[in-house]
Amino acid sequence: MRKAIVHLSHTLGQAGEHYVIGEIIAAAPSALNGDDAAVMYPATPNSRTVASTDMMVEGRHFRRDWSTPNEIGQKAILRNFADVEAMGARPTAALLAIAAPADTPVNFVRGIAEGIGLRCAFYNAELVGGDLTRSKELVITVTAIGSLGGSQEPLVLSGARPGQKVVSHGKIGYSAAGLALLQEFGRDLPPEHEELWPLIDAHCNPWLKPGRGVIARATGATAMTDNSDGLVPDIGTMAKQSNVHIDLNSHAIAPDSLLVTAGAVLGIDPWEWVLTGGEDHTLVATTQKDAPSGFRVIGTVNRGTGLTIDGNKPRYASGWQSL
Amino acid sequence: MRKAIVHLSHTLGQAGEHYVIGEIIAAAPSALNGDDAAVMYPATPNSRTVASTDMMVEGRHFRRDWSTPNEIGQKAILRNFADVEAMGARPTAALLAIAAPADTPVNFVRGIAEGIGLRCAFYNAELVGGDLTRSKELVITVTAIGSLGGSQEPLVLSGARPGQKVVSHGKIGYSAAGLALLQEFGRDLPPEHEELWPLIDAHCNPWLKPGRGVIARATGATAMTDNSDGLVPDIGTMAKQSNVHIDLNSHAIAPDSLLVTAGAVLGIDPWEWVLTGGEDHTLVATTQKDAPSGFRVIGTVNRGTGLTIDGNKPRYASGWQSL
Repeated sequence: MRKAIVHLSHTLGQAGEHYVIGEIIAAAPSALNGDDAAVMYPATPNSRTVASTDMMVEGRHFRRDWSTPNEIGQKAILRNFADVEAMGARPTAALLAIAAPADTPVNFVRGIAEGIGLRCAFYNAELVGGDLTRSKELVITVTAIGSLGGSQEPLVLSGARPGQKVVSHGKIGYSAAGLALLQEFGRDLPPEHEELWPLIDAHCNPWLKPGRGVIARATGATAMTDNSDGLVPDIGTMAKQSNVHIDLNSHAIAPDSLLVTAGAVLGIDPWEWVLTGGEDHTLVATTQKDAPSGFRVIGTVNRGTGLTIDGNKPRYASGWQSL
Repeated sequence: MRKAIVHLSHTLGQAGEHYVIGEIIAAAPSALNGDDAAVMYPATPNSRTVASTDMMVEGRHFRRDWSTPNEIGQKAILRNFADVEAMGARPTAALLAIAAPADTPVNFVRGIAEGIGLRCAFYNAELVGGDLTRSKELVITVTAIGSLGGSQEPLVLSGARPGQKVVSHGKIGYSAAGLALLQEFGRDLPPEHEELWPLIDAHCNPWLKPGRGVIARATGATAMTDNSDGLVPDIGTMAKQSNVHIDLNSHAIAPDSLLVTAGAVLGIDPWEWVLTGGEDHTLVATTQKDAPSGFRVIGTVNRGTGLTIDGNKPRYASGWQSL
């Protein structure tokens, strides 16, 4: 029941569940939303369903003074859809569960939903369902649903084979560098460092071109993951699961001028961001064929075990710890 | 990496992410788990995918002194699978996202996963993926995935038609009565009230016979929902969405002897539990045909609008508020 007396500046507790759910649905509409559960037709005959879930906790995964609600919503989708893309599948739908304190402004939740609706639209996906409850701490769980058409295998962690190239789509190290800048300066970069804004943007509002996972699968990739915990741990997991050795080319992943500048400003070795930063959600695949459109070659798959860079042990190895 | 020195009495912070995820997967195993996302084959050719998500916050949806971890896990599945069943679909998979304080015992999370694995097994479903992160407050999000085979319509809230019967499967009012008993006595009922234990059990570990949603759809039901927010609000929503009048038969839903006894013990009118208690997840459907196996007739669908009981306005009407 939407009442004229409720304003977006009101809190969740003042506005009530029905009003807030109405605002979320208005910001990210879908004809599939509104019943006990969403019912989705297969995208292609007998396509397989792909699903992944991911939680964001305030203070741990985002801060309200560092990210706008719209950015938080967009990032929640990107994080989840990257996992669906990493199987070679097409993200088709998202579900949103929010636990929030009663004094949270309706406007804030509406902003998150707008970011979710916006980012979903880039994938031709929709927010098809959700849940809203009260808590002491703001927690956002997004579940991504995707569709894997055709009879080819999904791009599993265990699919890398000796003789293949390692290819990647997306920035590497930008998100961690952006986080380090936020920790030092907050969101207001000093004028002399304004050029570093793309790093903060990569942390608060990371971007991958939608559909790269499908393209990679369609053009011969056999393994894929996304750089969420850090390049070395994530590709290391792929090497282990595939029982292969992966060697990355240092020139291909070397910090670019922005990362080098940020490292100099903060007194941090930018290689740390590249190798263990994570949260870029860069898609990393292996393929016998040419690099798929939007991907570049960053290494090779060989017989053996483990991960090296130019044949050497990585300088930094431990990534994001969830606990 | 499972290390010999980690014990289940340790905390999440001591054991670390990999160990805890290993324990969860050991308690609720699935071959579909372990990659960036789960990939599920259609259960029947061109079956539609059904999805729903639901959050449980400690202190709001459960208390550790009232529910065992196993019960919390089982209830998380029941709540979500009831939404999938309410579409007439078959639950096939669940995803589990847990945010928990670092001092939470590994044993507690393992117990939740065991409850999830146990309850999933009753549906031939599996825990196919998840996420684990640190938070100040324990929050559990389960997403249910289901399969809707065949060409019949799903059982939507708007599917009730004048002339149909209203039928239900499951207890009504038991969960709210159990909660009221817990609030009065805690989990240790005084010996003279031991007979009331099934009410507490219905709150902590609610049970529906798996597959009743599929049966109802197969035998001609056209609308279904589950009693989560309260019988009057939930059936009221169905009446509104279907643009019909629904009349419930007071004899069919009247408090049974257990509810009457609990009401007398606590000084509460048991009709309040029946009409607005919610959380029973009773399946409520409408059908032109005989009540499906496991269902009983509790009312009729008529031309008009609104919800009545024996033609009168319900004595209690407002149910569970999420915010």
